[in-house]
Amino acid sequence: MPTVYGFSPSGNCHKVRLLLEQLGRPYRWVETDSTSGATRTPAFLARNPNGKVPVLELDDGRVLTESNAILCWLADGTPSLPGDAWQRAQALSWMFFEQYSHEPYIAVARFICGWTPADSPRRADLPRLRERGHQALAVMERHLTAQPWFTGPDYGIADIALFAYTAVAPHGGIALDAYPALRDWLARVAKTPGFVPVPAPDATAAALIAQST
Amino acid sequence: MPTVYGFSPSGNCHKVRLLLEQLGRPYRWVETDSTSGATRTPAFLARNPNGKVPVLELDDGRVLTESNAILCWLADGTPSLPGDAWQRAQALSWMFFEQYSHEPYIAVARFICGWTPADSPRRADLPRLRERGHQALAVMERHLTAQPWFTGPDYGIADIALFAYTAVAPHGGIALDAYPALRDWLARVAKTPGFVPVPAPDATAAALIAQST
Repeated sequence: MPTVYGFSPSGNCHKVRLLLEQLGRPYRWVETDSTSGATRTPAFLARNPNGKVPVLELDDGRVLTESNAILCWLADGTPSLPGDAWQRAQALSWMFFEQYSHEPYIAVARFICGWTPADSPRRADLPRLRERGHQALAVMERHLTAQPWFTGPDYGIADIALFAYTAVAPHGGIALDAYPALRDWLARVAKTPGFVPVPAPDATAAALIAQST
Repeated sequence: MPTVYGFSPSGNCHKVRLLLEQLGRPYRWVETDSTSGATRTPAFLARNPNGKVPVLELDDGRVLTESNAILCWLADGTPSLPGDAWQRAQALSWMFFEQYSHEPYIAVARFICGWTPADSPRRADLPRLRERGHQALAVMERHLTAQPWFTGPDYGIADIALFAYTAVAPHGGIALDAYPALRDWLARVAKTPGFVPVPAPDATAAALIAQST
C-alpha cells in the first residue's frame, strides 16, 4: 500500500488523494504540514531534497515527487490517463500549464490570503497574482466552451490537476463569476464517482481569508 | 513535417529543437520573437491562447503546446523516453521540477539580464531569483552525485528539459562553479549524438548580460 506524505489543505496534495479515492486504491496518508517546517526536516529532505509535498512512497521505499508526475504514475493503464499518445500529450500539456501558468498565481494568492499573517509583506503581490490567475482561468474558459474535459474525451488526471486550485481560487480573492463554462466543469468534476472535495480551511485560515478577500 | 513556432534564444524552445535534431526528425522552424509581440497576435493566440512559445503544429493543423509536453509526444516510443512506467514517472517528475522549481528562477533571471532594459525595475527581483535558482541547482547536483542522467538509466527528455536553461544559467548571474557533478553532466549532454547548443545571445543581449553579471 503506498504512503502519501501530504498537507491536506494543499491543492497539490489533494490531487493525489482525489485520484487514489477515485481509483479505489488503498493508501496511507501521513499529514505533513509544510507551513510549520515538516518538509524541512532531515528525514523529509532525504525523501524529497526539494522539500515539497506531496511525496509518494512505495512499500519497497522507492519515492516519487511532483504531484502531476504522481498522478501520471498512478493513472498509467487506467481510464484516467488516455492510452492514445496524442491525447496523453494534450493532457500533459494542460498539466504543465497548471504548474507554470495557473498554480504559481492562483495557489500562491490563496496561500498568502489564508496562511500568512494579515500584515505579511507578501500581500503586496496579490494584485499581480490575481491578474495572472484570471489570465489562466480565461484560457481554461476558452477551452471549456468547446470541450467538456481537459484530459481528452473523458474526465481524467488533467481535470484532477486543474480542479484542485481552481475550485478554491476564491480563497485567494479570485472570483469565478466571469467563467460560466469553468463553473459548469467544476460541477461536473464534483459529480464524478468517488469525488472528495478539497478540505475547508481551518478556523485560523478561514478568518484570514475572510479578511483578505 | 511538423512546424515549430519558437524563439531561438529561449531555452524552452531550444528543448524542442534539440530533441528533433537528435531524433533526426525533419521539421520547419518559424522564428517567433516573444519579446516583440509575435506571441500576442490574433493568429498566434488562435494556436496557443496562453500566448507562449514553443508551439508544435502537425500537417493536419493539430497543435500541441508546453515545451515538456511536446518533448513527451515527440519522444513517445523512442529511447529518449523510458518504456518502463516507473522510470517514465521519474523523468516526468524532473520535468515538472524543471517547470516549477528551476525555470521560473534560472530562466527568468537570464531573461531579465539579457532581454530587459538596464534600468528595468524587474532587476530588483534578481537576488531572490538567483537564490532560488541555486536551490534548484543544488537539488540537481545531489541527484547527479548518484546518477548520471535525469531520464532514467540513459540520457533522454528529462535531461533535454533541464539542460537548456542550466547551460545558460550564468547569463542570469547564476554561476555553476559550486556544482561539479552538474558541470560534468552538462559536458556529457553536449557530447550526445546530434547535440546542438543553445544559440549565443545576439550583440544587444550579450551587452546587457555583460553589464548585469
